[in-house]
Amino acid sequence: MSNSKQFTEEEWQRMSKELEKQLGPEYLAQRPGPSGRPLTYIEGKTAINIANDIFGFNGWSTDIKDTTIDFVDVSDDQKYSVGVSVTIRITLRDGSYHEDMGYGTDQNSKSKGAAFEKARKQAVTDATKRTLRYFGNSLGNCLYDNPYLNGIGKMAKPTIKFTAKNLYRHDQFETKKTSPPK
Amino acid sequence: MSNSKQFTEEEWQRMSKELEKQLGPEYLAQRPGPSGRPLTYIEGKTAINIANDIFGFNGWSTDIKDTTIDFVDVSDDQKYSVGVSVTIRITLRDGSYHEDMGYGTDQNSKSKGAAFEKARKQAVTDATKRTLRYFGNSLGNCLYDNPYLNGIGKMAKPTIKFTAKNLYRHDQFETKKTSPPK
Amino acid sequence: MSNSKQFTEEEWQRMSKELEKQLGPEYLAQRPGPSGRPLTYIEGKTAINIANDIFGFNGWSTDIKDTTIDFVDVSDDQKYSVGVSVTIRITLRDGSYHEDMGYGTDQNSKSKGAAFEKARKQAVTDATKRTLRYFGNSLGNCLYDNPYLNGIGKMAKPTIKFTAKNLYRHDQFETKKTSPPK
Amino acid sequence: MSNSKQFTEEEWQRMSKELEKQLGPEYLAQRPGPSGRPLTYIEGKTAINIANDIFGFNGWSTDIKDTTIDFVDVSDDQKYSVGVSVTIRITLRDGSYHEDMGYGTDQNSKSKGAAFEKARKQAVTDATKRTLRYFGNSLGNCLYDNPYLNGIGKMAKPTIKFTAKNLYRHDQFETKKTSPPK
Amino acid sequence: MSNSKQFTEEEWQRMSKELEKQLGPEYLAQRPGPSGRPLTYIEGKTAINIANDIFGFNGWSTDIKDTTIDFVDVSDDQKYSVGVSVTIRITLRDGSYHEDMGYGTDQNSKSKGAAFEKARKQAVTDATKRTLRYFGNSLGNCLYDNPYLNGIGKMAKPTIKFTAKNLYRHDQFETKKTSPPK
Amino acid sequence: MSNSKQFTEEEWQRMSKELEKQLGPEYLAQRPGPSGRPLTYIEGKTAINIANDIFGFNGWSTDIKDTTIDFVDVSDDQKYSVGVSVTIRITLRDGSYHEDMGYGTDQNSKSKGAAFEKARKQAVTDATKRTLRYFGNSLGNCLYDNPYLNGIGKMAKPTIKFTAKNLYRHDQFETKKTSPPK
Amino acid sequence: MSNSKQFTEEEWQRMSKELEKQLGPEYLAQRPGPSGRPLTYIEGKTAINIANDIFGFNGWSTDIKDTTIDFVDVSDDQKYSVGVSVTIRITLRDGSYHEDMGYGTDQNSKSKGAAFEKARKQAVTDATKRTLRYFGNSLGNCLYDNPYLNGIGKMAKPTIKFTAKNLYRHDQFETKKTSPPK
Amino acid sequence: MSNSKQFTEEEWQRMSKELEKQLGPEYLAQRPGPSGRPLTYIEGKTAINIANDIFGFNGWSTDIKDTTIDFVDVSDDQKYSVGVSVTIRITLRDGSYHEDMGYGTDQNSKSKGAAFEKARKQAVTDATKRTLRYFGNSLGNCLYDNPYLNGIGKMAKPTIKFTAKNLYRHDQFETKKTSPPK
Amino acid sequence: MSNSKQFTEEEWQRMSKELEKQLGPEYLAQRPGPSGRPLTYIEGKTAINIANDIFGFNGWSTDIKDTTIDFVDVSDDQKYSVGVSVTIRITLRDGSYHEDMGYGTDQNSKSKGAAFEKARKQAVTDATKRTLRYFGNSLGNCLYDNPYLNGIGKMAKPTIKFTAKNLYRHDQFETKKTSPPK
Amino acid sequence: MSNSKQFTEEEWQRMSKELEKQLGPEYLAQRPGPSGRPLTYIEGKTAINIANDIFGFNGWSTDIKDTTIDFVDVSDDQKYSVGVSVTIRITLRDGSYHEDMGYGTDQNSKSKGAAFEKARKQAVTDATKRTLRYFGNSLGNCLYDNPYLNGIGKMAKPTIKFTAKNLYRHDQFETKKTSPPK
Amino acid sequence: MSNSKQFTEEEWQRMSKELEKQLGPEYLAQRPGPSGRPLTYIEGKTAINIANDIFGFNGWSTDIKDTTIDFVDVSDDQKYSVGVSVTIRITLRDGSYHEDMGYGTDQNSKSKGAAFEKARKQAVTDATKRTLRYFGNSLGNCLYDNPYLNGIGKMAKPTIKFTAKNLYRHDQFETKKTSPPK
Repeated sequence: MSNSKQFTEEEWQRMSKELEKQLGPEYLAQRPGPSGRPLTYIEGKTAINIANDIFGFNGWSTDIKDTTIDFVDVSDDQKYSVGVSVTIRITLRDGSYHEDMGYGTDQNSKSKGAAFEKARKQAVTDATKRTLRYFGNSLGNCLYDNPYLNGIGKMAKPTIKFTAKNLYRHDQFETKKTSPPK
Repeated sequence: MSNSKQFTEEEWQRMSKELEKQLGPEYLAQRPGPSGRPLTYIEGKTAINIANDIFGFNGWSTDIKDTTIDFVDVSDDQKYSVGVSVTIRITLRDGSYHEDMGYGTDQNSKSKGAAFEKARKQAVTDATKRTLRYFGNSLGNCLYDNPYLNGIGKMAKPTIKFTAKNLYRHDQFETKKTSPPK
Repeated sequence: MSNSKQFTEEEWQRMSKELEKQLGPEYLAQRPGPSGRPLTYIEGKTAINIANDIFGFNGWSTDIKDTTIDFVDVSDDQKYSVGVSVTIRITLRDGSYHEDMGYGTDQNSKSKGAAFEKARKQAVTDATKRTLRYFGNSLGNCLYDNPYLNGIGKMAKPTIKFTAKNLYRHDQFETKKTSPPK
Repeated sequence: MSNSKQFTEEEWQRMSKELEKQLGPEYLAQRPGPSGRPLTYIEGKTAINIANDIFGFNGWSTDIKDTTIDFVDVSDDQKYSVGVSVTIRITLRDGSYHEDMGYGTDQNSKSKGAAFEKARKQAVTDATKRTLRYFGNSLGNCLYDNPYLNGIGKMAKPTIKFTAKNLYRHDQFETKKTSPPK
Repeated sequence: MSNSKQFTEEEWQRMSKELEKQLGPEYLAQRPGPSGRPLTYIEGKTAINIANDIFGFNGWSTDIKDTTIDFVDVSDDQKYSVGVSVTIRITLRDGSYHEDMGYGTDQNSKSKGAAFEKARKQAVTDATKRTLRYFGNSLGNCLYDNPYLNGIGKMAKPTIKFTAKNLYRHDQFETKKTSPPK
Repeated sequence: MSNSKQFTEEEWQRMSKELEKQLGPEYLAQRPGPSGRPLTYIEGKTAINIANDIFGFNGWSTDIKDTTIDFVDVSDDQKYSVGVSVTIRITLRDGSYHEDMGYGTDQNSKSKGAAFEKARKQAVTDATKRTLRYFGNSLGNCLYDNPYLNGIGKMAKPTIKFTAKNLYRHDQFETKKTSPPK
Repeated sequence: MSNSKQFTEEEWQRMSKELEKQLGPEYLAQRPGPSGRPLTYIEGKTAINIANDIFGFNGWSTDIKDTTIDFVDVSDDQKYSVGVSVTIRITLRDGSYHEDMGYGTDQNSKSKGAAFEKARKQAVTDATKRTLRYFGNSLGNCLYDNPYLNGIGKMAKPTIKFTAKNLYRHDQFETKKTSPPK
Repeated sequence: MSNSKQFTEEEWQRMSKELEKQLGPEYLAQRPGPSGRPLTYIEGKTAINIANDIFGFNGWSTDIKDTTIDFVDVSDDQKYSVGVSVTIRITLRDGSYHEDMGYGTDQNSKSKGAAFEKARKQAVTDATKRTLRYFGNSLGNCLYDNPYLNGIGKMAKPTIKFTAKNLYRHDQFETKKTSPPK
Repeated sequence: MSNSKQFTEEEWQRMSKELEKQLGPEYLAQRPGPSGRPLTYIEGKTAINIANDIFGFNGWSTDIKDTTIDFVDVSDDQKYSVGVSVTIRITLRDGSYHEDMGYGTDQNSKSKGAAFEKARKQAVTDATKRTLRYFGNSLGNCLYDNPYLNGIGKMAKPTIKFTAKNLYRHDQFETKKTSPPK
Repeated sequence: MSNSKQFTEEEWQRMSKELEKQLGPEYLAQRPGPSGRPLTYIEGKTAINIANDIFGFNGWSTDIKDTTIDFVDVSDDQKYSVGVSVTIRITLRDGSYHEDMGYGTDQNSKSKGAAFEKARKQAVTDATKRTLRYFGNSLGNCLYDNPYLNGIGKMAKPTIKFTAKNLYRHDQFETKKTSPPK
Repeated sequence: MSNSKQFTEEEWQRMSKELEKQLGPEYLAQRPGPSGRPLTYIEGKTAINIANDIFGFNGWSTDIKDTTIDFVDVSDDQKYSVGVSVTIRITLRDGSYHEDMGYGTDQNSKSKGAAFEKARKQAVTDATKRTLRYFGNSLGNCLYDNPYLNGIGKMAKPTIKFTAKNLYRHDQFETKKTSPPK
């Protein structure tokens, strides 16, 4: 991003404040962890939405710096297991950046293609989330904080409601564009 | 894109608003998912059209950064299965970009050529869509949101109608160009 | 294209409008698809002509970024089958670009040379068309739209007529050049 | 071509008009096609002459980007068959360019050297013609148009006549140069 | 970070003072060390938070310079052990930087994928912490100081309390953004 | 040729005119063609002289871009056959250029060295001529034109006469230099 | 460090004086040397602290230029021995730098991962110390001076005392930041 | 030659005239050709002298672009035959250049070293001469012209006489330098 | 060292004078040479100190340009011998530099790690000293001068005394810093 | 030599005149040639001295562009023969340059080291002389001229006499320097 | 040496005069040559001292461009012989340079390490001397001149005397520095 530019004081203040905040319960998801206990996490689409909210849709860029297929195993009954590691760099508009790895696996899939696809895509999403976390709590760093997890676990978890009012509609159903981009 | 340039305030506001919107039902398609349940998705041509609407036909660029043939298998009865992974970068006019992977497979095709062709092309289209999704809801990120999927599933799904009025016609049928490009 | 330059407002408006248009029936061709149903498509020469009309003969550039021979098979009766994948980048005058893959095959050809030639050339033409499609409907993206295909299928398909009036003639038959290029 | 420069409005108008024209019958040649039917084509020297007429002798440049020997086969009776693919880029004075492939083969030649030579040179000429075609009808794109082929087939095919008046002569036979180049 | 810039005197003084401070007890964690004695350390998320506090969320950048899989061993009973080394560079806004290695292992894991994932991610986090330590005591260098460890071990270890007041909430639950980024 | 410069209008007009001319009969040579019929061609030294006349001795530059030894065969009676392909680029003073291949062979030579030497040198000369041809008729493109070949074949073929008046003589025999180059 | 800048006279004088000083006894540690005699050395964290004191936290940068695994040996009873060499460059703010190697080993470790980890990290720390020594006595060069070692060995060795007054505390326990970085 | 500069009009005229001249008989040598007939050629030292006369001692530069050992053969009686090809580029002061190949062989030499030395040096000298020839008649292109060879063969061949008057002498025998170079 | 700068006249005079001086006896050490006779040399730490004295702590930079492990031998009784060569470049502030090699060996070490470590570190120190010697007598070149060695051997060899007055002390024992670096 | 600069008219005239001169007899040496006849040549040190006289000690630079060990043979009685080719470029102060090869051999040496050393050094000296020869007669080109060799062979060959008056003496024997270089 | 600068007229005159002088007898050493006759040479330290005297300590730079281990031989009785070739470039302050090779060997050493060390270091010193010789007589070129060797051999060979007056002393024994470098 050679056209990087510094933030204004106002932008920096707003972003700093939002990044320090811990995530509200409506952004959290849960799945069973490796030990059976529920694991609280943030979905990929949520992390993307929050990054777009804080940095702007054009305020952050992602590079897939490396993709490594760690293993492709075939069991005796023709089940496929694939493990993929992906390294991502996320660069802000002012040129600062972080890099981290994500991991994706598929175990004992009947389809070799499905195993590759799941492992690869999971790895990219995981790497995006792990790298975003470096920028602050609201991009996922709070999820590693036990007092927060305890506290947030006791709050009610509201659902973000669907509303048909702000949909992106085709011209036949809504007039949506007046001035062209340049 | 060395000639990248910043957006104007007006452009940025328009694009931000459109990218935050979730997709209207006329843009959605469905196919059976791996578990048999219907899977809601967006077709490649739709994603391209929306990107052209929001960013302009010259407002986004695509790079195929990597193509990997993960496997080419031949069954005992000479059926071919091919799996291809493609990494794409999409760059906006101001130089910001995202990268993601897409996947394409063909299983048990009688024709080796058809298997390669389908897997390769599917992978490019899939990667284009997965990368566009990073820019916001209206470019596909909303499709990972369950409340949205539930809500939109209950709305009527209108069809975008064909209209013969705005066709691109040959000079013999319509005068279409007066001033030359420079 | 280091000498890239931005479009004027007027150019951009003209190009945007023409690219949003769907193709008139005189630009379409049909061949039997893999499932036996007719497949509507655009010929390579038509796509090139439309791109020259919209962008100008010097308004777009093509790079063959990669050529991969996926397979060369010989059958027991000495028939040759070749599959080739080509990746093309198309760059507009302002520096924006898209990339996509095309595919070419020849099955069971008696001549190895003919098989290579057909597969290679088909792949380049296919890639050119698939990449042009990214820029809008009139460069092929409309062909993936079912309501359009249904609607256009019901229209009369006129033929672009040959006219001897605007031929490029040799000096012995027509005076055609007065001022030299510089 | 780092010293690329934009065309003047006048140059661009002249070139656009000439490139849109379809070829007069004096530029066409015919040979038997693969199916036995006559195939209408343009000879390499004709394409070069027209490119020099339209762009000027210094208005276009050619790069051989890639040469691949696809196969060298020897039959039991020591006949040689060679297949060669060549990729060419043609760049105009303003920096715009196109790339395409050409193919050359020699089948069952008694001489290995003649087989290589014919296949290589044919491939370069073929690639030059296929790439020039991208710039417009008068550089060969019209040859893929059936209504044109039908129409032009019905016109008389005049021959470009030889004239001894404009020959390049040695100083002993004609004074030909007065001011030196600089 | 080509757009690096020097710190102001005021910034430099503030950062120097904060980096010289040793860590308060609320930032410390303990785990059993290799010899059974408790090992005092700092968690990855804590180090990230402190770096963001001192340098700002955009004041430091991380590069994964190298990833080496030192070994992948499989035991007779199909347990997997993986060892991974990662080298990280951390660059401040003024262009100064440090590099160090981190290590990650998983021993006798039933899952090959889990072993790779744990070893890789542990290595990145470890490398981040070891590199941050170079910048001063409050980023971890104090943890190698025995008098400090003895002294801090005798202080009460308060817990950082969770507070619901400063959460990052969705628009449906809280208005959080007024002026857009530029 | 980084110091390339544009031609003046006067230079361009002169060169264009000379390049469009077809070759006078004094420049042509003949040898038996592969089919036994006489083949009209231009010798290497003639092409070099004409290029020097039209562009000036410093007006064109040659690059040997690639040299490929296609084959080196030894017969049972120790005769050597060598085939060499050479690719040349010729660049004019304004930076425009063309590339083409030439071929050289020696068949059944008693001397391996002579076979290599003849094949290599023939290939360079052939490539120089084939590339010069791109610039126009007087540099060889006319030799592919049948009406020209028929016409010129009927003209008398005068010989360029030797004249001792303009020889380059040593100082002992002629004073030839007064002002030094700078 | 392209933004390197020269030191002011005042800075240079202060740094020169501090670098010429030999280390006070509170900075020294001892361990048994290879011959059984005590070996006086400086710990890694101490060298880092002194470098930060003299050059400032942003006044020196470290590069890991090379990492070489010299050997990985396994004994008959499954003990692992690993030897690692690391080359480091340390660059000051004005662009001057030194490079040296450090070494790390682990002998007869039961765990392969622990052996790699210990050897790698020890090598980095050792290289950092050996390279810092080039800048002067107070960064370790005095430790190679026998009269100094004899003299300092006779002085009392005071311990740097822990003090809770200057700890880095969380906001809940202390207000620590008022003006944001820019 | 980045410091290339254009010739003055006067320089260009002088050089052009001298390059167009055919060589006087005092510059020619003869040796038996492959067919036994005498072959007229120019010696390497003569070509160098003429190039220095026309372009100046600093007016042309030579690059050995490629050296290829085509073969090293040993006969049963330990005689060595070596064939070497050398490609040379010769660049004039204004940046224009030509490239050509030369060949050197030694057949059945008793000494392997002598065979290599002769073949290598012969190839360089041959390549220098073949490349110089591109610049015009007086640098060797006239030697390929039969009417010239016939005509010059009938002229008397004077010898360039040795004269002791203009020798380069040591200070002890002649004062030769007064002002130093700068 | 791109920010190299020339020395002032005063600096150059001071450095030249100091570099021409031969070393005083207090800087010399002795060890048995290969022939049993005492070998006079300078220790690494002494050379570093003198270089810092003459050039300043930031006046010279060291590069390890190459490290080659010449051999690793294991004897029958499991003793290890290692030989390492290191090439170093030392660059002064004005950009002038020298390069030389140093050598390190360990013979018949029981520990492979110790053998590598000793050989590597010895080689770096040796290379540093051999390269510094190029700059003049006081950096070691005098040690190759027999009259000097004879003369200095007859002088008394005083010891540089330890003095506790100028030690680098921790803040708890001495106030040592008032103004921060910038 | 990026700081190349053009010669002044005066310099160019002086150099041109000196380079055109043939060598005086005091510069020539003789050794038996391959055919037993005496071979007249110039020694390496003489060529270096003349180049320094004509161009100045800083007026020409030498690059060893390539060193190739053509063969290393061992005879049955352990005699070593080595053949080495060296390519050198010599660049004048204005950036013009020439390249040529030299050859060195040692035949049947008892010592492998001596054979390598002699062959390598001979090749460098030979290449230096062969390359210098390109610049003119006084740098060796006259030695290939038979009339010169005959003429010079008849002149008396004076010896350059040794004179003790202009020796480079040590300060203890002569004061030789007053103002320092800058 | 990008910061190269031209010499002043005064500098150039002084250097030229000193470089033309032949070496005084106090600079010469002798050792038995290969044929048993004494060989006059210059020691490495002497060449370095003279180069520092003429060019200044910062007036010349050395690059080790290549190091090649030509052979490592082991005899039946475990004696080691090593041959090493080193290529050095020496660059003056104005950017002019020369390159030459040096050679080092050790024959039948009991220690492999000692053999490598001696051969490598000897090669560097030899290369330094051979390259310095290019700059003129006083840097060694006179040693190849027989009349000089004969003449100088008849002069008395004085010894440069040791004097304790100008030694580099430690601060404890002499005050030696007042103003710091900058």
